[in-house]
Amino acid sequence: MRAETIVLHEKRDVTLTAYIQEAEGEFGFTKRPAMLVLPGGGYAMCSDREADPVALAYSKAGFQTFVLRYTVTSKGKWPLPLEDYEEAMELIVKNAEAWHVDQDKIAAVGFSAGGHLCACAATVAEHKPAAAILVYPAILKEICDLCQPGMPYPNEHVGKDTCPCFLVAARDDRTVDIKNSLMMELALAEKGIPFESHIYSYGGHGFSTAEQWVVTNSVSERVPDWVPDSIGWLKEIFGALTYKGFTEPNIAVSKNGDTAPVLAVSCSLKHIRKQSEEVQTLLKPMYDGIRIVAEARGFDMEKLMDAVGNNTIREIMEIVQVDADAIVEIDKALHGMVNRLEERKG
Amino acid sequence: MRAETIVLHEKRDVTLTAYIQEAEGEFGFTKRPAMLVLPGGGYAMCSDREADPVALAYSKAGFQTFVLRYTVTSKGKWPLPLEDYEEAMELIVKNAEAWHVDQDKIAAVGFSAGGHLCACAATVAEHKPAAAILVYPAILKEICDLCQPGMPYPNEHVGKDTCPCFLVAARDDRTVDIKNSLMMELALAEKGIPFESHIYSYGGHGFSTAEQWVVTNSVSERVPDWVPDSIGWLKEIFGALTYKGFTEPNIAVSKNGDTAPVLAVSCSLKHIRKQSEEVQTLLKPMYDGIRIVAEARGFDMEKLMDAVGNNTIREIMEIVQVDADAIVEIDKALHGMVNRLEERKG
Amino acid sequence: MRAETIVLHEKRDVTLTAYIQEAEGEFGFTKRPAMLVLPGGGYAMCSDREADPVALAYSKAGFQTFVLRYTVTSKGKWPLPLEDYEEAMELIVKNAEAWHVDQDKIAAVGFSAGGHLCACAATVAEHKPAAAILVYPAILKEICDLCQPGMPYPNEHVGKDTCPCFLVAARDDRTVDIKNSLMMELALAEKGIPFESHIYSYGGHGFSTAEQWVVTNSVSERVPDWVPDSIGWLKEIFGALTYKGFTEPNIAVSKNGDTAPVLAVSCSLKHIRKQSEEVQTLLKPMYDGIRIVAEARGFDMEKLMDAVGNNTIREIMEIVQVDADAIVEIDKALHGMVNRLEERKG
Amino acid sequence: MRAETIVLHEKRDVTLTAYIQEAEGEFGFTKRPAMLVLPGGGYAMCSDREADPVALAYSKAGFQTFVLRYTVTSKGKWPLPLEDYEEAMELIVKNAEAWHVDQDKIAAVGFSAGGHLCACAATVAEHKPAAAILVYPAILKEICDLCQPGMPYPNEHVGKDTCPCFLVAARDDRTVDIKNSLMMELALAEKGIPFESHIYSYGGHGFSTAEQWVVTNSVSERVPDWVPDSIGWLKEIFGALTYKGFTEPNIAVSKNGDTAPVLAVSCSLKHIRKQSEEVQTLLKPMYDGIRIVAEARGFDMEKLMDAVGNNTIREIMEIVQVDADAIVEIDKALHGMVNRLEERKG
Repeated sequence: MRAETIVLHEKRDVTLTAYIQEAEGEFGFTKRPAMLVLPGGGYAMCSDREADPVALAYSKAGFQTFVLRYTVTSKGKWPLPLEDYEEAMELIVKNAEAWHVDQDKIAAVGFSAGGHLCACAATVAEHKPAAAILVYPAILKEICDLCQPGMPYPNEHVGKDTCPCFLVAARDDRTVDIKNSLMMELALAEKGIPFESHIYSYGGHGFSTAEQWVVTNSVSERVPDWVPDSIGWLKEIFGALTYKGFTEPNIAVSKNGDTAPVLAVSCSLKHIRKQSEEVQTLLKPMYDGIRIVAEARGFDMEKLMDAVGNNTIREIMEIVQVDADAIVEIDKALHGMVNRLEERKG
Repeated sequence: MRAETIVLHEKRDVTLTAYIQEAEGEFGFTKRPAMLVLPGGGYAMCSDREADPVALAYSKAGFQTFVLRYTVTSKGKWPLPLEDYEEAMELIVKNAEAWHVDQDKIAAVGFSAGGHLCACAATVAEHKPAAAILVYPAILKEICDLCQPGMPYPNEHVGKDTCPCFLVAARDDRTVDIKNSLMMELALAEKGIPFESHIYSYGGHGFSTAEQWVVTNSVSERVPDWVPDSIGWLKEIFGALTYKGFTEPNIAVSKNGDTAPVLAVSCSLKHIRKQSEEVQTLLKPMYDGIRIVAEARGFDMEKLMDAVGNNTIREIMEIVQVDADAIVEIDKALHGMVNRLEERKG
Repeated sequence: MRAETIVLHEKRDVTLTAYIQEAEGEFGFTKRPAMLVLPGGGYAMCSDREADPVALAYSKAGFQTFVLRYTVTSKGKWPLPLEDYEEAMELIVKNAEAWHVDQDKIAAVGFSAGGHLCACAATVAEHKPAAAILVYPAILKEICDLCQPGMPYPNEHVGKDTCPCFLVAARDDRTVDIKNSLMMELALAEKGIPFESHIYSYGGHGFSTAEQWVVTNSVSERVPDWVPDSIGWLKEIFGALTYKGFTEPNIAVSKNGDTAPVLAVSCSLKHIRKQSEEVQTLLKPMYDGIRIVAEARGFDMEKLMDAVGNNTIREIMEIVQVDADAIVEIDKALHGMVNRLEERKG
Repeated sequence: MRAETIVLHEKRDVTLTAYIQEAEGEFGFTKRPAMLVLPGGGYAMCSDREADPVALAYSKAGFQTFVLRYTVTSKGKWPLPLEDYEEAMELIVKNAEAWHVDQDKIAAVGFSAGGHLCACAATVAEHKPAAAILVYPAILKEICDLCQPGMPYPNEHVGKDTCPCFLVAARDDRTVDIKNSLMMELALAEKGIPFESHIYSYGGHGFSTAEQWVVTNSVSERVPDWVPDSIGWLKEIFGALTYKGFTEPNIAVSKNGDTAPVLAVSCSLKHIRKQSEEVQTLLKPMYDGIRIVAEARGFDMEKLMDAVGNNTIREIMEIVQVDADAIVEIDKALHGMVNRLEERKG
């Protein structure tokens, strides 16, 4: 593995340290996923405790890793840190071939103030990461303004093109109140952006990877789990890097087929109910199953169908125990039927 | 281990199944913690998949476990389920001696509608559990009213006497929207009630313990972790059950000493700053340390002290690297100084 | 879950306690795997600490579990304990339907003296378990004779029909020397019986599941891992119990196809080299690959092929990087070629 | 972290790559533990798959790591690889100060042929590592001679000064037979050298860290656990590296106090029984407890005391339930009594 530090801006002490592992040769893949690490320190410093120890965790998992030491307040103000981030991303993309990086699989992780920068990257940057990990991030006005007035509050900028986020914090954080994370989650939920979140009972602020040699205070014994958990989460989004290259991502499991040109069992019930009579007839086994369940549980059938309308009909058929072979047959038949999107608006 | 099912209300099909393990004899303890399991099912049924598999997880961890099958809509309406809960708790307390249960360590876990019941137990019940685990709980008006109109929305009833809560859900839950969990967390944060929360990227609704033989849909591979995580969290609150009895709880770590009769390094900075000049002089090494950090990071010292005012001075002295022996000396000296609570209001 | 204690022999205090969980109904399977627990105690007692806590671990994992309290020395001598075991197995098989037990998936776990009984079950019993877990087992003459003279030493009875074994012990065991486990492993290796083994640095004797509430001495923090590890190992042998029934076992991965009627890439290199010229020609890409590797690494090619002769040719082709599609083609072609077993003896 | 490759012998392609992390500054310690990685490849090559991925695992855990690419057969023969090892160790010790390495905490890990080299380092080298991790090591004559005739068979050289060892292998290894690991374990057991061992059901040969991006064949899902398990084992021997430096090692727990100048409850029963009458009288509560247990379990008391003679009397007193306070009192009293070592020989 090579370690290389590239000076981005000498006067502002902005550097990008790259840890580049091999590909090909004895390894059966040509490209790796990448992780850009944004340390914290209140925009007053870039903490070493949130730099290499973090990079090493992702290097071990097969990532090419990069630590960005961005502009701190004494050297310059916002939006310089975000510009440093954009520059780092451009450099990684430009060198993707030489550095064996899969351009579509560049994630970022940030801590505290670096978590703010990372949340800005996820929401307002030009070069958004493919996934963002926010560790005890500063999000809300109170704490952001304390660091440096004039910066964006990322929860207010979550939109359709925000990348999937993974949030980590401790409930007893007395530096960055836990509401910072909760309000960011609410914004992501509101816009339907995939996220995962682990809020630990205690851990305070600044635990980094929470390994014994990194953490300075006592924390719930579950806190170090966030690192492997985040790696598992990235596997769902990027696919897993195996000896022979990437597996397929499986986050798609939670997407439905409502907007595809033909119908399928991956359509939502809500959408299917707006289709032709022919479709409804085909799905009689499902409707029968729903009726049985509704009666058994004392539910009104219409109300029940409204309540589960966002489920795919595959999920519903499995729950009401339509025969597995029948589901396969129904899926095939649906593939021959045009998806009447206009009906949906009607 | 004995398994016993007690009929609480024959007509309403309300039963309490008790799984009672041994104490004393070859075991060096006399009392165990207890867990009351509240299965889900939309208040229309009590799901077997959220009953015994859950009880077994806590039995294995040393708990006495109890499954309550409460009144469902076809047999009676709210507040009957809550009354069933109160009755179950009374029965456990009454039999605490015979069942080797530590009365102060009775927790409850509920799923979906059972999660709603559990959240009501945590907030509005007379016999509150000592800790509550809420798994994809129904909290908000929309879903609660669908199950059965007229029930409380637990997030609106969080108060000072709400017990610590552990929340588990999947972001892609299409039956009970993830906002149910998020709004409950916000209410807990608002009132300062300790909580922990794990929201998984996908898992849908109804995964129970997420063990392969229990779960019916595919889920993020991290989902089954909530069970051991909840057991670890309970150890922080209850202490760990060891061969010789319970260890000390360590959730206290996150409490401060502001209300004790004498001062200590467990007091918050905010509180200490309101004490006598003598106290301030004693703490010169801390203030010097803060000054150095503030200057190094370009912070205004007063602003910084406001921002970290809720930290204990022990935490702050450790961060600014006051010598460990000096901290011990300061703690001793503080013990001889009266805590001027009235100053606090001034 | 029902708990039932069946008296097998009143005078000898022999009992079988059964913990029977549900099947069908809300669960999509009809049969579960089973685990028979044989506690230890020097054949002088059956320890409670190695009974229910162990059963609960496997119940939680979906098993029907059974605790056998067998004949101890003061009530009768060997082979009575083994006869108790046989009787317990007959009873489980007889009740397999009613108890939702898959007869082909009954495992046994034994501790110390119970580990000796379990190792006898695995080697000399009529009703062998499908898999045996031996925890700090007594195996060798010295310790067996101390417990009760006249019992078999199981390592001397390992044969072709011995079931797969999973061994657990601590190196610093001062009651049953670690050589007991090592000599059993050597015997299993000698006969080619699949096994797995975890020997921990320290843990002494009698740690049972090593959960905090069960273990009486301090142990390496890895010791409790043997329980989930053994469950993972059983999944390889039995298949995993899922909501819809068992998955396929995958221990078969390590078996080869040398005795099948037609050839395949699952045959060993040693076996393939004894086949026709036509077969050798088909496998030219493999031989070319081996030659390249041998030359690159400075090995004699014949010696190398002898050394890796027990590998399947699929494994070898993957290692020497024969194209994946070519492997599929070769496999198909081999299926059309008769396996000349007689050649092998030639 | 700096990455630096030092050429030890240019003609023989011998290099040492060092990955050096920071100490002091934001970290509260001055020295780290170190790990020297010895890749495998039949002494014909040094595999990249067993080099950096392994180093990264220990770097992440806080170690300074080093990869030695030693002399391979085409460049020179044994004992050159061992000489390369000695040279690497000398270099690390010489640079200990500059590289922030604790000289007493340098471990080595080797794979296959590198496992042979590592086992030689542990047994016959001048600069032995403080702990050795042997992964599917070549130990026995058959495989060693295949690699290169004339090398030592390490199991034949285990002695009093052999360092603690951690062994990892798969039972279905068809390149290096599992007996290689088992015979090494037997030799360690024979000489009383502390060891730990994990033999997995299947995994074949060459799985390295068994991470998805490193391993080329399918393996038991438990195989990747050996890496964190080995780190936990090293913590027992070295103490854990924390933010403030190393904790105390706790492998000492399994040592007894038979050779100390005064007596203590950490002496073995066997040793204590050879002491004065006064000592025996002091220990009456223990002997009473043993008698009760022996009678309850139907054991002969003398035989029982012989059988557990290697246990410390603390362990025995805990098992027979001597009061904890009494044990403390007894320990204090024993501290005042000379340890009569000569009695022991009598």
